[in-house]
Amino acid sequence: MQLKKDYFTVRNRTEDICAPLKTEDYVVQPVVDVSPPKWHLGHTTWFFETFILIPNVKGYTEFDPQYNFVFNSYYESVGARVIRTDRGNLSRPAVEDIMRYRRHVDDAMETFLDKEHTPELQALITLGLNHEEQHQELLYTDIKYILGHNPLFPVYNPAKTSPATTKAAGSWLEMKAGVYDIGFSGNGFCFDNELDRHKVYLGDYSLREALVTNAEYLDFIQAGGYRDFRYWHAEGWDWVKKNQVEMPMYWYNINGQWMHYNWQGLQPLLPDASLCHISYYEAAAFAAWKEMRLPTEFEWEAAAPQLSWGTRWEWTESAYLPYPGFTKAPGAIGEYNGKFMINQMVLRGASEVTPPHHSRITYRNFFHPSLRWQFTGIRLAK
Amino acid sequence: MQLKKDYFTVRNRTEDICAPLKTEDYVVQPVVDVSPPKWHLGHTTWFFETFILIPNVKGYTEFDPQYNFVFNSYYESVGARVIRTDRGNLSRPAVEDIMRYRRHVDDAMETFLDKEHTPELQALITLGLNHEEQHQELLYTDIKYILGHNPLFPVYNPAKTSPATTKAAGSWLEMKAGVYDIGFSGNGFCFDNELDRHKVYLGDYSLREALVTNAEYLDFIQAGGYRDFRYWHAEGWDWVKKNQVEMPMYWYNINGQWMHYNWQGLQPLLPDASLCHISYYEAAAFAAWKEMRLPTEFEWEAAAPQLSWGTRWEWTESAYLPYPGFTKAPGAIGEYNGKFMINQMVLRGASEVTPPHHSRITYRNFFHPSLRWQFTGIRLAK
Amino acid sequence: MQLKKDYFTVRNRTEDICAPLKTEDYVVQPVVDVSPPKWHLGHTTWFFETFILIPNVKGYTEFDPQYNFVFNSYYESVGARVIRTDRGNLSRPAVEDIMRYRRHVDDAMETFLDKEHTPELQALITLGLNHEEQHQELLYTDIKYILGHNPLFPVYNPAKTSPATTKAAGSWLEMKAGVYDIGFSGNGFCFDNELDRHKVYLGDYSLREALVTNAEYLDFIQAGGYRDFRYWHAEGWDWVKKNQVEMPMYWYNINGQWMHYNWQGLQPLLPDASLCHISYYEAAAFAAWKEMRLPTEFEWEAAAPQLSWGTRWEWTESAYLPYPGFTKAPGAIGEYNGKFMINQMVLRGASEVTPPHHSRITYRNFFHPSLRWQFTGIRLAK
Amino acid sequence: MQLKKDYFTVRNRTEDICAPLKTEDYVVQPVVDVSPPKWHLGHTTWFFETFILIPNVKGYTEFDPQYNFVFNSYYESVGARVIRTDRGNLSRPAVEDIMRYRRHVDDAMETFLDKEHTPELQALITLGLNHEEQHQELLYTDIKYILGHNPLFPVYNPAKTSPATTKAAGSWLEMKAGVYDIGFSGNGFCFDNELDRHKVYLGDYSLREALVTNAEYLDFIQAGGYRDFRYWHAEGWDWVKKNQVEMPMYWYNINGQWMHYNWQGLQPLLPDASLCHISYYEAAAFAAWKEMRLPTEFEWEAAAPQLSWGTRWEWTESAYLPYPGFTKAPGAIGEYNGKFMINQMVLRGASEVTPPHHSRITYRNFFHPSLRWQFTGIRLAK
Repeated sequence: MQLKKDYFTVRNRTEDICAPLKTEDYVVQPVVDVSPPKWHLGHTTWFFETFILIPNVKGYTEFDPQYNFVFNSYYESVGARVIRTDRGNLSRPAVEDIMRYRRHVDDAMETFLDKEHTPELQALITLGLNHEEQHQELLYTDIKYILGHNPLFPVYNPAKTSPATTKAAGSWLEMKAGVYDIGFSGNGFCFDNELDRHKVYLGDYSLREALVTNAEYLDFIQAGGYRDFRYWHAEGWDWVKKNQVEMPMYWYNINGQWMHYNWQGLQPLLPDASLCHISYYEAAAFAAWKEMRLPTEFEWEAAAPQLSWGTRWEWTESAYLPYPGFTKAPGAIGEYNGKFMINQMVLRGASEVTPPHHSRITYRNFFHPSLRWQFTGIRLAK
Repeated sequence: MQLKKDYFTVRNRTEDICAPLKTEDYVVQPVVDVSPPKWHLGHTTWFFETFILIPNVKGYTEFDPQYNFVFNSYYESVGARVIRTDRGNLSRPAVEDIMRYRRHVDDAMETFLDKEHTPELQALITLGLNHEEQHQELLYTDIKYILGHNPLFPVYNPAKTSPATTKAAGSWLEMKAGVYDIGFSGNGFCFDNELDRHKVYLGDYSLREALVTNAEYLDFIQAGGYRDFRYWHAEGWDWVKKNQVEMPMYWYNINGQWMHYNWQGLQPLLPDASLCHISYYEAAAFAAWKEMRLPTEFEWEAAAPQLSWGTRWEWTESAYLPYPGFTKAPGAIGEYNGKFMINQMVLRGASEVTPPHHSRITYRNFFHPSLRWQFTGIRLAK
Repeated sequence: MQLKKDYFTVRNRTEDICAPLKTEDYVVQPVVDVSPPKWHLGHTTWFFETFILIPNVKGYTEFDPQYNFVFNSYYESVGARVIRTDRGNLSRPAVEDIMRYRRHVDDAMETFLDKEHTPELQALITLGLNHEEQHQELLYTDIKYILGHNPLFPVYNPAKTSPATTKAAGSWLEMKAGVYDIGFSGNGFCFDNELDRHKVYLGDYSLREALVTNAEYLDFIQAGGYRDFRYWHAEGWDWVKKNQVEMPMYWYNINGQWMHYNWQGLQPLLPDASLCHISYYEAAAFAAWKEMRLPTEFEWEAAAPQLSWGTRWEWTESAYLPYPGFTKAPGAIGEYNGKFMINQMVLRGASEVTPPHHSRITYRNFFHPSLRWQFTGIRLAK
Repeated sequence: MQLKKDYFTVRNRTEDICAPLKTEDYVVQPVVDVSPPKWHLGHTTWFFETFILIPNVKGYTEFDPQYNFVFNSYYESVGARVIRTDRGNLSRPAVEDIMRYRRHVDDAMETFLDKEHTPELQALITLGLNHEEQHQELLYTDIKYILGHNPLFPVYNPAKTSPATTKAAGSWLEMKAGVYDIGFSGNGFCFDNELDRHKVYLGDYSLREALVTNAEYLDFIQAGGYRDFRYWHAEGWDWVKKNQVEMPMYWYNINGQWMHYNWQGLQPLLPDASLCHISYYEAAAFAAWKEMRLPTEFEWEAAAPQLSWGTRWEWTESAYLPYPGFTKAPGAIGEYNGKFMINQMVLRGASEVTPPHHSRITYRNFFHPSLRWQFTGIRLAK
């Protein structure tokens, strides 16, 4: 059964990502956007227990009824008082308890997946696997944040490297004006935010084939890009000043040597590697300094078949909004995407930590414009 | 000379708006989005002094060189210490000094406008007048906020009323799919954000001809709309809970009677009047409760010739983003619009306090989705 | 009648202090500790209306029942929603209305004071006058803050000077160990916090006869006193870093010249004048740098008959706590002092803006250790 | 050698306190006042390495030079950027690394303690042991906070109970007016804040022999004590409203049954047990409601030989201030106590989690008046 095979491939990969961690690394939450790895392990499991096993498996025994509160979004009230705690304040459940929870759910799923199921149920399991794959990427970004903001700069995995080089910056892909079809079509899985497929009119435009490199971004820094308000959105400029931003996340200038934190600890910065870990504000300011712009998500999607991509999530100039005909699924599953469609910018492509086969050219990633702990980069348009 | 006539029409209207105020009303800034009326009076004057008189009138004597710091955005540093003050903390310059400043600049402009000028200079003066008209609308909204948040609920003008009725809610305008031209064309003034005129593909859609009324919105309140997270964006729901929002701004339920603050003080709410003073979050939640949606700004503009409009700024489902080909003007004027193109939603139409002839069907207003002290309303789409 | 004469002396002096202000100056509240001058004018009047006229004058007509909410501490709720506004956001009542309020209350008080009253009622009127005198000092400190934090540095009164010189720093007053009586005794008015008179044992100690001068404090600055954590309380050090404090309030170093803001605008700093506008943290750090300390309030009071004093409130090393036998008066008057007896330090003496005859050697002033907009100075002890 | 024996008694007791914890419990910091248990384990060890071994043991090899930054107060800068992290965000060093650090330092200390040392050095080692004992109490209070704010309410130790009963409330100890000697005298260890011994004059007073019980405090709650501002300091009343405080920390009213979190998990509240986990604000409000007061620290110390005590830290009405003649030790050790002498109230006695023989009748504990995660209680005075 393909679904059963997929299930265990995905579930095992989640645990593989965590294998290099110490128990303590599973617990902390240094900023609100980062979740403790143990929360990801529990939350992805909670999905299968809550939406598959409890409604569909007669006689299934919930692992622990309190986990619903811990791994869902809202916590239990005790008496008249609600306990509000950030995830990073919760030492329990312990990692070993969460691993037992995974085993408990995986055992029940194994039995369950041996049976025939309706297409609706198969689709829901597939959604759960795609959901877990999204959390796999978040596990990587959150682990990098946790280790990379520790003054000891611990190594995650001495053998893990990032893609080091990028294509030469010279060539541009030219696209003709016309009406293009945008959005998912065909069989297979997609998220609700990729629908409906619809027509978009685009004028002539060009996209640069290569992503922006570290060396190009260093030119921007050295030209005073972080000190000249003219390149920035008003809100971006406030962000720069308030946070005293001077360089991408994980970069350090140590005694004149540019370094960055990576899977192997502090490393010299490679000039020809694709730039990573910048906010939308920085991406837009860099493009303005170049007297160019970022592509819209529609320009990106129309050109995607002719681009190679896959090492950075590419900020677009499109806000995250519903496509024509977008409708939420009824019930809790309907909360998946629609409720985030405000004050977020779309990113397209995939990154070095996106699970294999997880992304598509119609895939819409999205984050608030100030965030940069994801593996984000820049593609120029004009 | 038309331009001279226009100049004094606009300048006088600004002062007419302030005529009912007491000196104290010119000074306060109850929230960061509201500016003290005296700041609007000075800032609009500073525009003409800085961009017209100083560069173009030989021998012009600046009224007070320090006003540049007070009526621009950034304040002077004294020694090594920057004085950061909110506008509402500045008792000086006094209102009478600012009125003398207006006289000083108007006298110089009167002489200046008697001469012939290049089209570029005429366009810049026209921009200054449109800028002042935008601040006229802000004067109304800020004055309403200042008086309407005072526990004495002072009357602004006992003779000033708001449009009381709206069209019957029954009929819908149906629009056909196709490629539409969007953006300003023709002669006359427009803002840079209305350009370039470009093509947009729209599918079939319908817009309701009448705006949402107070009575319709009361139904939403009474159906528990503010207590059911399913209708809200995640960020909107946080906003509701954090601010304990239960009704539009200026509404009060006093002993079971629905009242609202208006130009004449506290007044009974009129059920058939167009709803006003709601945030984008509320507009979107109301539409979701109705199982409809808000129009995009392109749908709105394509349909506008067939709609009557003009009493409420209508929230759209479009984020405020640059049109294809948008370019900033060089220099300080270029800061006008582009730098705000992030995390704002577009509003279309005009309101009861928009200056006559100020708006257009291509006009793009924009505010952060949480704000509601503007005269905002809802048009439904499906 | 002495009380009637005193009443109008005090009431008129309050208005004299405000005479140099423009209407706009009465309105603003740049920081939470500063109240708008018009609030002081109303609040002191509210005291007499609420505690004297309403309970004791049959047929007295309240000026405006809503003023109780505006000039008391808590604001009214309208319907289910409480309007919370800071004082500086309230443009109404206007200054002219508050002046009519003062006339209304003063007229009623004039008639009332022509009659005989019980000692209790006379004491309450005297408390109201002492209360208004305290607000006279606050009017001076708040006006200085409002004008001194305006980038135009307006002059309050070109004829008003501060005491310019201080006694030579050489001599010390030596006090012998023993049991001293502390607290108010005798006839005349005192605040409840000066009672009960009680015994305190003091060891040998010395107080410096002259207050610390600007020149002495400049030595501390130039010796790096603001950059060496060893001189500071932990909480004071946090305050220095968070607020980037480098010098006393109102001081500026402009192109190498030390200036300060005063009644006449920006003025050169006088080296021999008594230091002013420093926090308790700064006072304690300066004393630590001198390898001395601040006196306790008991040491100060025991030595006071042999000291000249009167230009600065002198920070003591005593926290503001109840004396043995302290009891609150019943009712609202009992809120006067006791509820502030936590996290405040005692200041003794009087300042250049304390009303004549208002202070006493048993008088206990108190402020939070971080505040410095009062006329505060340093006396050294060892 | 007594000192060597004491050393290992104290060091082992620290680890015994942590024995029931899971690795995850060592890591989190739910509020700023609580430190992660692993930080306490490292910080107490850092004391001996930094102040004893490095300066005095030739050839001593530091365990890890970076630990100085992790277990001291300030973190290292890397390049021009300072990494500021809260303790609870640091997953590394791991618990096992910190345990190896303890072994490394203990081994070196074992050798070192076999030798003869100067009295100064012996005193410094004794200070280190008293410092570690203070952290033992903090370990208990912080562990209780971490587990007691977890929605799973984990059990710390099913065998550990709290003292359950208290003395009958009837009797009072009466003390006579006079000059008393206050502060440490004699041989043995004391903290610098207990010196100099000095004379204090006290009037007649009485202290209640029994501490306030849970039942007495429930009367206060049920009489509306948390809703009547008259019992509270102004700052305490703000604290109640802002934090919606209605009962002591760890108390819950679940379906009408009063429960509290304790070492054994959620337990029914025992009416006759001594009240615990209240702030100074609550202690003072309770005393005001009783028309009594809290003792001063001097009254407490003078009466202490006639009182039994030892289960609760008792809030006094004394602010934490230096005794006459108090001097800081030179160098880093001098930071121990003096820098905290502002905005803290003194607590006297000892609690159920104070290490045996750690406290004294001259011992001065101190906390900010809002804090209540310590084992604090109330003794009444009049």
